[in-house]
Amino acid sequence: MPGNSFGHLFRYTTWGESHGPAIGCVVDGVPPRIPLSEGDIQVWLDKRRPGQSRFTTQRKEPDRVKILSGVYEGQTTGTPVSLVIENVDVRSKDYADIAEKFRPGHADYTYFKKYGIRDPRGGGRASARETAMRVAAGAIARKVLGPDIVIRGALVAIGTLEVDRARWDWGAVESNPFWCPDARLVPEWEKYLDGIRKEGSSVGAVIEVEAAGVPAGLGEPVYDKLDADLAKAMMSINAVKGVEIGSGFGSARLRGEENADEIRMKGNEPEFLSNNAGGVLGGISTGQNVVVRFAVKPTSSIATTRRTVTTKGEETEISVKGRHDPCVGIRAVPVGEAMLAIVLADHLLRHKAQCG
Amino acid sequence: MPGNSFGHLFRYTTWGESHGPAIGCVVDGVPPRIPLSEGDIQVWLDKRRPGQSRFTTQRKEPDRVKILSGVYEGQTTGTPVSLVIENVDVRSKDYADIAEKFRPGHADYTYFKKYGIRDPRGGGRASARETAMRVAAGAIARKVLGPDIVIRGALVAIGTLEVDRARWDWGAVESNPFWCPDARLVPEWEKYLDGIRKEGSSVGAVIEVEAAGVPAGLGEPVYDKLDADLAKAMMSINAVKGVEIGSGFGSARLRGEENADEIRMKGNEPEFLSNNAGGVLGGISTGQNVVVRFAVKPTSSIATTRRTVTTKGEETEISVKGRHDPCVGIRAVPVGEAMLAIVLADHLLRHKAQCG
Amino acid sequence: MPGNSFGHLFRYTTWGESHGPAIGCVVDGVPPRIPLSEGDIQVWLDKRRPGQSRFTTQRKEPDRVKILSGVYEGQTTGTPVSLVIENVDVRSKDYADIAEKFRPGHADYTYFKKYGIRDPRGGGRASARETAMRVAAGAIARKVLGPDIVIRGALVAIGTLEVDRARWDWGAVESNPFWCPDARLVPEWEKYLDGIRKEGSSVGAVIEVEAAGVPAGLGEPVYDKLDADLAKAMMSINAVKGVEIGSGFGSARLRGEENADEIRMKGNEPEFLSNNAGGVLGGISTGQNVVVRFAVKPTSSIATTRRTVTTKGEETEISVKGRHDPCVGIRAVPVGEAMLAIVLADHLLRHKAQCG
Amino acid sequence: MPGNSFGHLFRYTTWGESHGPAIGCVVDGVPPRIPLSEGDIQVWLDKRRPGQSRFTTQRKEPDRVKILSGVYEGQTTGTPVSLVIENVDVRSKDYADIAEKFRPGHADYTYFKKYGIRDPRGGGRASARETAMRVAAGAIARKVLGPDIVIRGALVAIGTLEVDRARWDWGAVESNPFWCPDARLVPEWEKYLDGIRKEGSSVGAVIEVEAAGVPAGLGEPVYDKLDADLAKAMMSINAVKGVEIGSGFGSARLRGEENADEIRMKGNEPEFLSNNAGGVLGGISTGQNVVVRFAVKPTSSIATTRRTVTTKGEETEISVKGRHDPCVGIRAVPVGEAMLAIVLADHLLRHKAQCG
Repeated sequence: MPGNSFGHLFRYTTWGESHGPAIGCVVDGVPPRIPLSEGDIQVWLDKRRPGQSRFTTQRKEPDRVKILSGVYEGQTTGTPVSLVIENVDVRSKDYADIAEKFRPGHADYTYFKKYGIRDPRGGGRASARETAMRVAAGAIARKVLGPDIVIRGALVAIGTLEVDRARWDWGAVESNPFWCPDARLVPEWEKYLDGIRKEGSSVGAVIEVEAAGVPAGLGEPVYDKLDADLAKAMMSINAVKGVEIGSGFGSARLRGEENADEIRMKGNEPEFLSNNAGGVLGGISTGQNVVVRFAVKPTSSIATTRRTVTTKGEETEISVKGRHDPCVGIRAVPVGEAMLAIVLADHLLRHKAQCG
Repeated sequence: MPGNSFGHLFRYTTWGESHGPAIGCVVDGVPPRIPLSEGDIQVWLDKRRPGQSRFTTQRKEPDRVKILSGVYEGQTTGTPVSLVIENVDVRSKDYADIAEKFRPGHADYTYFKKYGIRDPRGGGRASARETAMRVAAGAIARKVLGPDIVIRGALVAIGTLEVDRARWDWGAVESNPFWCPDARLVPEWEKYLDGIRKEGSSVGAVIEVEAAGVPAGLGEPVYDKLDADLAKAMMSINAVKGVEIGSGFGSARLRGEENADEIRMKGNEPEFLSNNAGGVLGGISTGQNVVVRFAVKPTSSIATTRRTVTTKGEETEISVKGRHDPCVGIRAVPVGEAMLAIVLADHLLRHKAQCG
Repeated sequence: MPGNSFGHLFRYTTWGESHGPAIGCVVDGVPPRIPLSEGDIQVWLDKRRPGQSRFTTQRKEPDRVKILSGVYEGQTTGTPVSLVIENVDVRSKDYADIAEKFRPGHADYTYFKKYGIRDPRGGGRASARETAMRVAAGAIARKVLGPDIVIRGALVAIGTLEVDRARWDWGAVESNPFWCPDARLVPEWEKYLDGIRKEGSSVGAVIEVEAAGVPAGLGEPVYDKLDADLAKAMMSINAVKGVEIGSGFGSARLRGEENADEIRMKGNEPEFLSNNAGGVLGGISTGQNVVVRFAVKPTSSIATTRRTVTTKGEETEISVKGRHDPCVGIRAVPVGEAMLAIVLADHLLRHKAQCG
Repeated sequence: MPGNSFGHLFRYTTWGESHGPAIGCVVDGVPPRIPLSEGDIQVWLDKRRPGQSRFTTQRKEPDRVKILSGVYEGQTTGTPVSLVIENVDVRSKDYADIAEKFRPGHADYTYFKKYGIRDPRGGGRASARETAMRVAAGAIARKVLGPDIVIRGALVAIGTLEVDRARWDWGAVESNPFWCPDARLVPEWEKYLDGIRKEGSSVGAVIEVEAAGVPAGLGEPVYDKLDADLAKAMMSINAVKGVEIGSGFGSARLRGEENADEIRMKGNEPEFLSNNAGGVLGGISTGQNVVVRFAVKPTSSIATTRRTVTTKGEETEISVKGRHDPCVGIRAVPVGEAMLAIVLADHLLRHKAQCG
């Protein structure tokens, strides 16, 4: 199957290039009779939208989403929901240069090798602009999950500066431009990123997303494990190079008695005493918080001059001048949340089918 | 779709419980006229087989694979290849105790919550025994890839003891029971693991697998990126909690000019000067080595007493006495190699279909 | 999976309701570097467009297709091709009545029972308007197949009046409003349909589509046989109640020596002496013409008064006054051609993947 | 995807060649806690088994099915159910001749063209022996559907001799070797088939299967309509050349007021006054009986000499002497029933997922 769809029962397909007339997606499998308006989706897109601080790209996209199908009198009908966002702020001349050169760290070279053709305007299909439709589909996924499943995310590291988990405060996340849960770290990050931006460089980041209220039992062993699908979902986001669940790579350094979460009774229900598992055992949700982290590499489009070659095979250099994020990871937070919602919605429907 | 299949064009489905009569798989989509014998598969199974050193489980399984279909006069016919391995060394009484208790760190609780029933004998379907069929399917995938794509793996950390990459020697990997590429580390690991085993404990590990000779162009943006499918493949292996590609989580700490691999010409072909990308850009292979690492948590079945609850909701304790690996990560090396081969074979066929 | 997609490697997804703002589709898996313009698609849409004679619905839709993605400088890029057609001639008041009543022979009742909600305007998602996007996707499929595979269709029966195969002339098909290959029958059909239209009734039809130039070897035994996928494709078209391949139901009345097509050599290639098989044996194309016929039931929206019930469970009557086709089968000819092209394009890519 | 699987949520994959060591299937997605024994499956296999009268092939296969996984203490566990039947009565010498010649009406030529290799022993993968596993999977599907959905089938025509529907008696079906619902026709069919068999010929047949008790609402518009999936399911059976639903091809000859089933109330529920629709409107079940008919071509392996060519391109003749059915359609009745059960089980789970 071609690769532009995600999910099995809650399934969406995205289309569109960064500098084409529009981007969009079709969300199929949405249960009927769910109240849904453009506003329900717009609220999440607004959080992701670029140009909101000096730390994210200055492209000005209003990103107004339109629902073209699948909703009647304010409710989903069970037919495909088609969403579209027009591309407004498209300055293709910015990209004249890169049509001839392969930008290091970008997909320019690989698209060219794969397809023998590529749309170079703004990165074409490989642009992070595609992630707007993930956020839109994620908004519908949240509706499918209902209000009892709460999904949220935070940035836990920019470059070498990590949050102090002892100071973690979900309340702080929305009051700074970094989704930082550690308020004391915010000014440090500001100063650090300002320096990086001025030097024409960029830096990577680590994002953590979690879902609370997930019932036990979601996930399909053995290949469509909940965590396997989460790993795929997060790794499919632009610039992501690593994914971990619960204690993740840290669990490799633990001993068995430290790692395996013990169980006691709390009232009539079993309760885990810790959550190294990140809410998933044997690929199935335990009922604890599902916790996922992923690493985003530094923005590859930087002003610093880099060595590369042209499409004709000549050695050259490149320095990307356009509007770019010093840390593309910042904008990945709502995207990671959306992918978590989408994976859970898909598995909720799958679980209902076989075991409901 | 149910979760016991993997891949799209090179697609296999596994079945079987740890202590049922047999385990098996059906591999569909195998190109025709590939020479294939049971010996071609057995050689890889023998590498994974338990009971080969005191550091892996003492279960004695000959693991003789039989081909039941899809091969005629020594060649694949393009029809499904059915493989089966009988379960021989099945001592179900070892597990009488755990039928009543949820083992911490295991899937006992989640299977019970999902299905309302579980086969407790040897972990049933959640047992690592399932991975034998991954290795078998991987052997066929290697045949599909052909001799120019070379896949190999190594253990790069046991607990807190990591290999020294300056001493990396692929030649060393097969001459020790740990797949360790750093010969000087082997005695240290032996001593360390002996200690852990005697204490009735266990420890985690990190595995690295790589594929050399992969042509540029494999991978389907945007959701079936090569690295997204690799992340899913590795995370679907029992006990894996994290996956990374190339510099992985380390890339989050890099700056743009350090991370993005520069390009020069080498003869008539572009050449990358480093491989932080791990051989994948924009979800498509670059032609460099594809490099994947994954973290395996410590074996959860340990002799140390742990708190848990019974299926009836009573608090209790458990201590698992059976034959278990002090470091289940060791046996994950050939499984990781197999999954890498399977993902590449699938994407090779997918690439041929659209762009071949 | 949800049901609004078709195909595996050449895969498209349609969306949109009859009286929503637009209808559209996303075609994924299109090979790169195929010349493609809106005109290439429009030419087929124009053939299907309603309102071209008094024998098809008088709804006036210009049906101008727009390409929103996947094409760069006149060539496909291998990324999803998004197509959209705005709905212009939408008169929702025509349908005020049917919001309360289940029209006999329509999907009103079943959508309501399935989803608990339905969009009654113009039949919503169940409208034959959806077939415009099949024709659009089919236009791209023809491009994928290339000029050597020629697909065409004809109407072979309206009601009880069948064409005389002895007078079959493909040249006649485009010179009458019925796609009739038997020029002598045209005036009879005109008179017959005029009578039916004036009586406020309707009648069924049989369509035959064929593909010439199909290479031997397409089709995936045993469940995705070429003819099995063709049967699904045709049966998924609105109002279709039967599908047959080659001699079809007629072959049930034949004896073995009449039915099995004999083989001789023609030059260096085997040649079949007849084509009862309809170009498919064992689910795989033989190289002969692929021949498919399907039956379309009479238009269910008729002026004649019919008994039915309301959504509230009251008995009532209904007589549909709007603009409707006396024989909806006429407009199904280009839709059948499109579905044949789509199935072949999908199987061409699938064959390349495994055996190419 | 490769073609040896069927269904989406209730999904099975078959493997095995006619004269290999065994045939089998893996049924994935089975809901947990359904009582299931080998006897539950064997009862349906026994009905299909060849060699039970002089009108079906004399191959003597005990066809004893074994369950290898997915069942624990008599109940399904939600994990894959692996079924296997050993091939016992394999006389490969019977087929030495056909290894060199393409049998007219068989898949010999097309498999050879597709794969460049074929297993000629007994037709290899293309043998009707594969249908035993459809019957086995169908037995599990019936369990998923539960006792309220009743599926049954009958032979309605052999060659030119059709049953008289006025004499239809379901009770008669099991008391003759033809699944004939018209007891008065049985001696005629016997005489007719005896003649055909003695002449070394064969003849086609038409089968009708129906499901009673199907709830309204099953089916996924627009491509995975219930009837579209049924058409695919039936057309995928060996030798089937046509499929129709309800009035089928006959509906093409009807007028709108004859065809569209009127609706009245019966108590609190709507009731259709006729069933031309065959229980499906707009691709969704209406709650009436689902009625499907399919045409089976005459057995292609006949004693009568036929012209053909060799694999080396020489003209020759062939006359097949082995044990074959004069009317292969007879044995297709339980296979059609099984496919109907499988399609319904799959759609039942799909419906639960989105709308349950």
